[in-house]
Amino acid sequence: MSAVSVIGRGTTTFGKKEDSLKSMLVEASRKAIIDAERPKIDAVFVGNFTAGTLANQEILGSILTNELGLGDVPSVKMEGACASGGLAFRHAYQLVKAGEYDTVLVAGGEKMTSQDTETVTNAINHAMDSGTNEAASGLTFPGFFGVLANRYMHEHGADKKHLAMVALKNRDYALANPIAHFRKETTLEDIMQARKITDPLGLFDCSPISDGAAAVVIQRGENGVQVLASGQASGIPVMQEVDDLLHIPATHQSAKRAYAAAGLGPEDIDVVEVHDCFSITEIIATEELGFFEKGCGWEAVEKGLTKHGGKVPVNTSGGLLSKGHPIGATGIAQIIQIVDQLNEKACNQVENAKIGLAQNLGGTGAYSVVHIFKKKGA
Amino acid sequence: MSAVSVIGRGTTTFGKKEDSLKSMLVEASRKAIIDAERPKIDAVFVGNFTAGTLANQEILGSILTNELGLGDVPSVKMEGACASGGLAFRHAYQLVKAGEYDTVLVAGGEKMTSQDTETVTNAINHAMDSGTNEAASGLTFPGFFGVLANRYMHEHGADKKHLAMVALKNRDYALANPIAHFRKETTLEDIMQARKITDPLGLFDCSPISDGAAAVVIQRGENGVQVLASGQASGIPVMQEVDDLLHIPATHQSAKRAYAAAGLGPEDIDVVEVHDCFSITEIIATEELGFFEKGCGWEAVEKGLTKHGGKVPVNTSGGLLSKGHPIGATGIAQIIQIVDQLNEKACNQVENAKIGLAQNLGGTGAYSVVHIFKKKGA
Repeated sequence: MSAVSVIGRGTTTFGKKEDSLKSMLVEASRKAIIDAERPKIDAVFVGNFTAGTLANQEILGSILTNELGLGDVPSVKMEGACASGGLAFRHAYQLVKAGEYDTVLVAGGEKMTSQDTETVTNAINHAMDSGTNEAASGLTFPGFFGVLANRYMHEHGADKKHLAMVALKNRDYALANPIAHFRKETTLEDIMQARKITDPLGLFDCSPISDGAAAVVIQRGENGVQVLASGQASGIPVMQEVDDLLHIPATHQSAKRAYAAAGLGPEDIDVVEVHDCFSITEIIATEELGFFEKGCGWEAVEKGLTKHGGKVPVNTSGGLLSKGHPIGATGIAQIIQIVDQLNEKACNQVENAKIGLAQNLGGTGAYSVVHIFKKKGA
Repeated sequence: MSAVSVIGRGTTTFGKKEDSLKSMLVEASRKAIIDAERPKIDAVFVGNFTAGTLANQEILGSILTNELGLGDVPSVKMEGACASGGLAFRHAYQLVKAGEYDTVLVAGGEKMTSQDTETVTNAINHAMDSGTNEAASGLTFPGFFGVLANRYMHEHGADKKHLAMVALKNRDYALANPIAHFRKETTLEDIMQARKITDPLGLFDCSPISDGAAAVVIQRGENGVQVLASGQASGIPVMQEVDDLLHIPATHQSAKRAYAAAGLGPEDIDVVEVHDCFSITEIIATEELGFFEKGCGWEAVEKGLTKHGGKVPVNTSGGLLSKGHPIGATGIAQIIQIVDQLNEKACNQVENAKIGLAQNLGGTGAYSVVHIFKKKGA
C-alpha cells in the first residue's frame, strides 16, 4: 500500500454555460494535468450522472481519453447519482494505492442547463428507485428534503431561520470563489423571503442546476496533499423504507469507515466540505460526520460554529448551494476545495488547516463517500 | 496481491422478457450468491449502459444492494457502453486482488425490449461521440460494422458466406444453451437469405436487442476458477479518426496486457468468448487476440478452426449473436461461460479446457477488456 497524493487540480467555472459536456471535461482535465506538471497519465476515471439522458452521451471515459490525446490507457465512467464524482475519485485512489496505476486523472462533469426544468427534474429522479411508486407519485428531491427539514424543525426546535443561516453562510463564502455559480451579496432577509420551492425550503435552500466540470490528478507518493482514507457506504434509496428520516446512515457509516482507516476522528478535522444539496442536508451531514450531536447541528449554525473561528468551517467553497452543483463535478470540486485549503491556496483560506474532509452524497442517501486529506509534510 | 476466484455465478434467461431490470439483476445475483454458498458480500459492482435513458433508472448499485438485503456495503455502477459488464468485473477483481474487499458481487443487466427499435438505436448511439457529426449524420452500429465487413471482404478476399458461417456456428452452439435468446435450428441458407440490415450484414449477422442479467461472486483465494489477469485499453470512439478500420487497437492492446500479466499467450488459451456484436466483429477479434494472423480470421472460420476440434472454440455460449446481448449483462455472461467451461459444467463443453479468455468490447472500439481464467487446481 503506497501513499497517494493529489498533484494537480482544475475546474471550469460553474453556472449556466454555453460549453458542451465534453469541452468542459477537457478544460478541467487540461488544467489539472498542467497543474500537475504534465505527468504520464496511466488511467482516466470519469464521474457523471445524467449525460445519457440529458446529453445523449455515454462512454465519457473513452471520449475524454481520446480528446486529451492520452493514448490507449484504461478509462471508465462511474455513476452513483450525485456521488458519481466522489466514487470515481475513490476507485482511482484505491487502485493507485494498490499499485495498479501510478498516476490517474479523475474528472467529473455535468451539462444540465440545456434542458428545461421538468426534463432535468425527471433525470435527477433517476436517483430514486423507479420500481417503487415514489417518483411516479410526484416525489422529487426538493420534496424529499423538504419533508426532512420540516421533521427536523419539529423534532429539534430549529426554525426556518437556521436553514437560511446555512444558505447565507454559503452565499457569503461563494463571494470569494471565482468559479462559483452565485457571487452576489445576499441578505438573510433575501433568503427568508425568497419564493418557496417545497415547504419549508425556499429558493436559496436548494442547490441550483449548474453546468461545470472538475478534475484532479492523483499519483503514488507524497508529492502533494495526501489522501489518508476513503470510506463508502450504501443506504436505502426508497423513502418509505427509511426508519428515521433525520438519520442518513450512509453518511454516518462512510465517515466512520474513513475515520477508522485514517486513525482520526471528527476532532482532528480542520476544514470540511459536505454535500449541501439543500440547507437541511448540510445540518444533518455535520451531525452524521460527528462534528455535532444529533439534533444539535442547527444550534451550531446559530452559534457560528461552522464558520471561520468556529469549531470547523463548513463549505468554504460556497458549497453546492452557492458554488453550484454540476452533479458529476461536485464530488471532485469538493475535494479540490479541501486540497486548495491544505495547499494554503483556497478562497476563504482557513489558517493552519492540516487535515480536511470531503463528503459526497448520492440520491436521498443511496450512497455516501468520504475522503480525508492531509497537508503535504504535515 | 492475492489470488482471486469466481466462486458463484447466476443468470436470467436472455431474450424478450416481462421482468424489470431490477428484478432481473436480483434474480441473477441471488442465483450467484446461492451458487457461492451465501458468503458475506463486501461490495457490489454493477455494469449497465442504457438504464438512465431506457428505464429512467440510475443508482443501480444502491438499488441492488438494498433489494438483496446486503446492508450498507459499498456499491457503484460502471459504464463503458457494451463493455460495462466486463469493466465492472475488472474493477471488482482489481480491488479484491488488492485486499480492499474479500468477496464482491458483480452484476450486469439491461432492459431493452420495452422500447421501440428507434429509441433503442438512439440509446445505443450514446456509445458514439455526440460532439461529432457521425450519429447525427445517421451512423449506427450496424452501419459502422457493415462498413468494416465490406472493407474486410475487399481487403482479404472473404465473402458473405464466411460471415454467415460465424453466425451459423453461434446459432448451433446456442441450441444447447438454456439461457440463449435464440434456440432454433438454423441453416446457412436461412442466414444467407435473411433480410439485409446494413450491407453486407443480414439479420443473423447482428446481435439482437435482448433483456437479461448475469452475476458472479468473486473472492480472494483459490476456491474456484481463478482470475489470472485483466487487461483493459481505450480506443478511438470516432470513426473518422480511425486509421485502419480493420484493426481494433483496444482489443489488441487489452489482450496484450492480459497476456503479459498472466505470462501466457494465445497458444495457451483452450476456450474463448469474444465480443461478436456482429459476425465480422468475431472474425476481427480472433485476429486481434492473436489466434489467427491479421486478415486470416475468415479462413479459420472456413476451416472450422473456431469450433470444437479446431484451434480454439469461440463463443461456445452462442455468443452475443445467439445467446443474446443484454448489454450490461454481456461481459459477465461471457465470463460465466468461461467459468462453466473450466468447471466442466458448460453447454458445449470443451474437453480438457484449463485456460479460458473472455473479451468484451465497448462502442465501435472505445473500450476493450480481456480477462484470463484458470481451472481450479490446474
